[in-house]
Amino acid sequence: MDKIPILRMGHFLLVTIQTDLYDRLAMSLEADLVQMVSKTNAKGVLIDISAQSIVDSFMGRIIGNIASMCKILDAETVVVGMQPAVAITLIELGLELKGVHTALNVEKGMELLQTKIILPTEDTSDDDDYSA
Amino acid sequence: MDKIPILRMGHFLLVTIQTDLYDRLAMSLEADLVQMVSKTNAKGVLIDISAQSIVDSFMGRIIGNIASMCKILDAETVVVGMQPAVAITLIELGLELKGVHTALNVEKGMELLQTKIILPTEDTSDDDDYSA
Repeated sequence: MDKIPILRMGHFLLVTIQTDLYDRLAMSLEADLVQMVSKTNAKGVLIDISAQSIVDSFMGRIIGNIASMCKILDAETVVVGMQPAVAITLIELGLELKGVHTALNVEKGMELLQTKIILPTEDTSDDDDYSA
Repeated sequence: MDKIPILRMGHFLLVTIQTDLYDRLAMSLEADLVQMVSKTNAKGVLIDISAQSIVDSFMGRIIGNIASMCKILDAETVVVGMQPAVAITLIELGLELKGVHTALNVEKGMELLQTKIILPTEDTSDDDDYSA
């Protein structure tokens, strides 16, 4: 497999990282995700890392990058399913994942996203009304 | 990685198969999924195979098995994101995936599940009322 599938669920995108992220895969995930956010007008991105029992600084940086990219495209990023050992390692590595929200699981992540963002009404062309 | 994560989303479970399913992984997926259906009282299982560009008879059989197991536990199974080449191969292999519903993507799969099943009311202990 050389692609991580990105699943669209309403206004959110869901990515489950199951394999080790090596350079090329991470780059392609970043590119695919940013394109997908732009194409689908997604308001939130959920990254599930429950399958990851270890994490390194590369992976931490990639997640940080994705969050920053999505932020620019007006989408919030939530990392879900982080194992306790991973949280310990991230802090020990000095990676605080700034700008990244976290939640215990996908359900809680979705709830968090729903509180964080103002979902557009059915007619998405009316977005501007919020600033009026 | 030796586990495929199973994500809970409301009354449904979502599994994204990103790697090749070898014997032990498939067995552990079957066992985990059946346990999870029983534990969470899930009414539907979504299996995303959009990352699979090829499929063999083993994989086809595993999906069929999962669907049959879930059916016994009163959960419907929907396979989503099947690539056209995979559909061609499955039919050529003589695997018609009986008892397995299919949908184009996760969103459509969820819609299908919602029409297929009668979701329990908030108080899940009142399930029996349907037979009255």
